[in-house]
Amino acid sequence: MFDLKNYIQERKEVIDKALERYLPKPAGPEGKVIEAMRYSVSAGGKRVRPILLMAACDAVGGDSKELLPAACALECVHTYSLIHDDLPAMDDDDLRRGKPTCHKVFGEAIAILAGDGLLTYAFELMAHDDLLKNCGSDLVTKAIYIFSKAAGVSGMVGGQTADVLFEGKPVDAETLAYIHSHKTGALIRASVEMGAILGRGDQNQIERLSSFGTALGLAFQVIDDLLDVVGDEEKLGKPVGSDIKNQKATYPALFGIEETRKRANELKEQALSALSAFGEEAEPLRAIARYVVERDR
Amino acid sequence: MFDLKNYIQERKEVIDKALERYLPKPAGPEGKVIEAMRYSVSAGGKRVRPILLMAACDAVGGDSKELLPAACALECVHTYSLIHDDLPAMDDDDLRRGKPTCHKVFGEAIAILAGDGLLTYAFELMAHDDLLKNCGSDLVTKAIYIFSKAAGVSGMVGGQTADVLFEGKPVDAETLAYIHSHKTGALIRASVEMGAILGRGDQNQIERLSSFGTALGLAFQVIDDLLDVVGDEEKLGKPVGSDIKNQKATYPALFGIEETRKRANELKEQALSALSAFGEEAEPLRAIARYVVERDR
Repeated sequence: MFDLKNYIQERKEVIDKALERYLPKPAGPEGKVIEAMRYSVSAGGKRVRPILLMAACDAVGGDSKELLPAACALECVHTYSLIHDDLPAMDDDDLRRGKPTCHKVFGEAIAILAGDGLLTYAFELMAHDDLLKNCGSDLVTKAIYIFSKAAGVSGMVGGQTADVLFEGKPVDAETLAYIHSHKTGALIRASVEMGAILGRGDQNQIERLSSFGTALGLAFQVIDDLLDVVGDEEKLGKPVGSDIKNQKATYPALFGIEETRKRANELKEQALSALSAFGEEAEPLRAIARYVVERDR
Repeated sequence: MFDLKNYIQERKEVIDKALERYLPKPAGPEGKVIEAMRYSVSAGGKRVRPILLMAACDAVGGDSKELLPAACALECVHTYSLIHDDLPAMDDDDLRRGKPTCHKVFGEAIAILAGDGLLTYAFELMAHDDLLKNCGSDLVTKAIYIFSKAAGVSGMVGGQTADVLFEGKPVDAETLAYIHSHKTGALIRASVEMGAILGRGDQNQIERLSSFGTALGLAFQVIDDLLDVVGDEEKLGKPVGSDIKNQKATYPALFGIEETRKRANELKEQALSALSAFGEEAEPLRAIARYVVERDR
């Protein structure tokens, strides 16, 4: 039986250390924005995307330790998206993972800049010598293309736009699928794809892992929506019911709780089936897919 | 006598066409944010950074038409910085180049996302096949590294942070130099450096053009500050005196108008002297350096 808890704990430590090493140190007149960036990056993130990147790299036989700058870059982009989503003009959230949000601590202007700084720094990390010397510039530019597409208007920014525009409005299944697959799904899929590419996977492996990432990303969001309805505030470290309060389009609101669980299980099966051609090296990915659907936090 | 007006007009048309072609088209649920991105990109920008990139490429004997995706990427980053700077939490500006600012037209949430979208799209353009096939992935990753450093906390975001933090506070010459060299200077220097690198300049040429870019970037900001004091509102297309109103740190506020003109002229001479080893191919860069200091808009 694969020990996912231990695996995640170990990887999280490696990633946290790498973030500490790679993130800029607060100094000079820009020190305040670096403090804000570091505050949000170290505010209890589960490092899902970096772990997926590394696990996908391992699944294709690569050396995932060589991908740490890319792992940190993914966490930078994820964190920037949370900082900007929490802003008063967006979701206006005061708490994130039980801690005051970036703009609550540093003010709106610095929070906007901290998000901008993290997003930009992600690409500095992707073009960092430490990644280039391990992966070569051909694979790195491929990864940057997929990364930027997944983070931008074709992906996360597009999903967040739809989320903002449809807030408080009736949403059909198609729009909800768009929001899910873009707002969260795109970057999760990209994490897996980038790991497969930078780990020197072949085209077939990259495509299978991309399918895995698509199913996993959707499952992740479906369960996130579900936990906002049935979850435990203490375990989640955030208030539940905020989607209902904000009249957000969610899967349970549209299809009910039972149908939502069923859909999540289908997605888990899809994710696992995309890994059928992989051996033991993909065991962490399989365990993650199960965990994502069965988690309570 | 080099006809700068005609040169800029021609280059601007080429760049505007490339922007029209390369920017995403408004469609799907994310259409609104793409509209906002396009609104701000086409709101009368002078395309200074793309023109500098192309001129630097020409100066080292490269084919600047091959760099259009990078030229567009620079304009995306410049435009994103304006959108975010104009937000209510930052400079709170209603007008930019005589037109309503992005958040005035599209609302704050979409304006934040449009900025995020443009910043991210810049890196998608840098990793675009059209640039890779012309320049190769080695030079492209070098350019991405310089670009992201200049746009992020070590550059533009750092400068904007200091600008925000020191608003309304007494500023010494050192801090002002930091703000100038980071907020505007870094991206201008990077434009020139990226042109030299992607145009296959040698190390010596890249270094000389980097010095040119440093001096030009400072001159640009010094004159921008000056025009806010002595400029003509109609020519500038924006209200003057806003720096004084916002108690911004500026060169004229610290050193007076005459000293500011003198400093701008020194920087122009520095910029020109960095080009002394270049031949006629650098004539556009020389003309730009003269124009930047002598302009009245």
